[in-house]
Amino acid sequence: MTDAPAPAATLPDLATTDPVELTRALCDLPSVSGDERAIADAIETALRALPHLEVLRDGDAVLARTTLGRASRVVIAGHIDTVPVQGNLPTQLRHDDAVGEVLWGRGTVDMKGGVAVALHLAATVTEPAVDVTYAFYDHEEVEADKNGLGRIARRHPAWLAADFAILGEPTAGHVEGGCNGTMRLEVATTGRTAHSARAWRGHNAIHDLAPVLAALAAHESETVTVDGLDYREGLNAVGIGGGIAGNMIPDAAVVTVNYRFAPHRDAAAAEAYVRAVLADALADLPDVTITVTDVAEGARPGLDHTVAAAFVRAAVAATGAEVNPKYGWTDVARFSALGVPAVNFGPGDPNLAHADDERCPTAQITDVAAALRAWLAPAS
Amino acid sequence: MTDAPAPAATLPDLATTDPVELTRALCDLPSVSGDERAIADAIETALRALPHLEVLRDGDAVLARTTLGRASRVVIAGHIDTVPVQGNLPTQLRHDDAVGEVLWGRGTVDMKGGVAVALHLAATVTEPAVDVTYAFYDHEEVEADKNGLGRIARRHPAWLAADFAILGEPTAGHVEGGCNGTMRLEVATTGRTAHSARAWRGHNAIHDLAPVLAALAAHESETVTVDGLDYREGLNAVGIGGGIAGNMIPDAAVVTVNYRFAPHRDAAAAEAYVRAVLADALADLPDVTITVTDVAEGARPGLDHTVAAAFVRAAVAATGAEVNPKYGWTDVARFSALGVPAVNFGPGDPNLAHADDERCPTAQITDVAAALRAWLAPAS
Repeated sequence: MTDAPAPAATLPDLATTDPVELTRALCDLPSVSGDERAIADAIETALRALPHLEVLRDGDAVLARTTLGRASRVVIAGHIDTVPVQGNLPTQLRHDDAVGEVLWGRGTVDMKGGVAVALHLAATVTEPAVDVTYAFYDHEEVEADKNGLGRIARRHPAWLAADFAILGEPTAGHVEGGCNGTMRLEVATTGRTAHSARAWRGHNAIHDLAPVLAALAAHESETVTVDGLDYREGLNAVGIGGGIAGNMIPDAAVVTVNYRFAPHRDAAAAEAYVRAVLADALADLPDVTITVTDVAEGARPGLDHTVAAAFVRAAVAATGAEVNPKYGWTDVARFSALGVPAVNFGPGDPNLAHADDERCPTAQITDVAAALRAWLAPAS
Repeated sequence: MTDAPAPAATLPDLATTDPVELTRALCDLPSVSGDERAIADAIETALRALPHLEVLRDGDAVLARTTLGRASRVVIAGHIDTVPVQGNLPTQLRHDDAVGEVLWGRGTVDMKGGVAVALHLAATVTEPAVDVTYAFYDHEEVEADKNGLGRIARRHPAWLAADFAILGEPTAGHVEGGCNGTMRLEVATTGRTAHSARAWRGHNAIHDLAPVLAALAAHESETVTVDGLDYREGLNAVGIGGGIAGNMIPDAAVVTVNYRFAPHRDAAAAEAYVRAVLADALADLPDVTITVTDVAEGARPGLDHTVAAAFVRAAVAATGAEVNPKYGWTDVARFSALGVPAVNFGPGDPNLAHADDERCPTAQITDVAAALRAWLAPAS
């Protein structure tokens, strides 16, 4: 027991450390959401040692940018927090018969690999072909209103000004463009209570959900092509509730619906779509309300933009990356809302994000770094 | 503050006190379920003072019976507990423009009026035309397994041996025969989780409830005539639940169904009926289970029995009582399970039971006492 402060966490030298080793070092620093101070301090210290970068900080978000006066600017971004550790730290290098060497442990997929690649490039590509803003931010794995990138967008939108953005979220080294939007709606029915021994005196709100569920079950979701990528939508009940007691006719019931909508729709169009799907079901019900409780619009992939197209060509040429739509909502939509086309491109299988056996082939970390280097520094 | 025990609660003299006054005295004794000791002691003391009765006690249940060697025996029963007091004690005599004098307060309806009538008859009809067992019991307003009448039926079934039983539950002075049974079933669907951004990888268990709810909503309940009374059934969802998170396809959902079934069906027939109603809905679902979680069989009214028929004739002649089916489940079913036909017959509007403004027209207390007296002591 001592009153002396713990020594500050430090990162190995960015310019000379392999991205895989850097990923390990980042994973082994405490950084569960809400506890990002130490890793943010370490990143800030490491970046301030690089004379070619201007460093900015807001809370536990750290940005560093080149100021070379290039014709275009790109943002390369990643969050520095992880979901809680489940006995899966410190990291281990393991061998996997299928994919070779893997780095195992919390954060190896989501998303210290992407962060390590960005830090590595920040230190080693001192004169990129485009100006680059590297952004490392906090609170991505928790409630959206705490999100560090969202905070920067509100407080310092100029810090994120760019022609294109790359988010290093895990995509297994492929390019995933844009993202679907997501909306949650509550469909609530209203009845009249009665003792269930005299049910005819009441009106059963749970029974009124029958046509709503039938419409959802029968609905066939669309696949929509946006900027050349096929976005598959989804419309699902994700929650249902109702009932007062085992001997009461319920006067209220609610089904929570989640609509994942392609990025050609905005929030208003998405709500109108759900209402249209349910219109016939609701026509005969006495008292139904539909309330949008949560919405995040998607992001068009924007791959027709000159800078984006150049990146995609370079990435495909360097690593054979595929170009696919992103189904899940990610922070690329925050860039989209700022008018910046954005893609996801990072190491790690997204299906292993948050898993207890989260692990990333080290080759993917190396490949993603090589692809970005091929684009940012084609001559090197 | 004193260490001396509180004086024992006492009842006014049973033989000389008007049933309305006796109802007041019973209401004003503490007797919320679980706290029946004082009222049970007072009832036992009062009954033991009557030399023509044999008194029995088990826990906080007190029984008293004549032993005149009559050809038939009837049970007149009532519970001595109430639901919690809501600022509605002590009782008050009030005037109601519609019904005249009312006794207001907790227990006036459910069911100190019926208990007072029984105590009054126990004391004043010393030579009834049939042998009578008066039964006063605890814990009716709480979980069924605590029910004092159920406990007597298990421990001392001979104490309840009879040809007919009258339960003094509130029926507004009418005769309500038998009761519907009640069964709760859980209909559970099973799906496969997935992130809702990739819903096609999962199977939505909430959507699978659509045909179940549709079958319940479309079902028209039967009305079944049993022993001359029309029992209206009810089949209803009384609860529904499902959902993991707002971004997950749910792998489990359940609807709780309550079936109120006429007393011509036993538990097995009731379950078969529900399964038949849902059969078409379930035919196409991959993985559904139906579990009976709770069942209480109903009771046939048994009004064709000689003793019962005589009682009904006397009650109708004395007070103009109507004879109706009982829809809700009551303790008459416990008598039915012992092979004893039983009816509900007591003062008070059952719709006011448990209400904060629980109140009973005093004329109903007097009328019910008169009707029972006309039957038990036709010569008096």
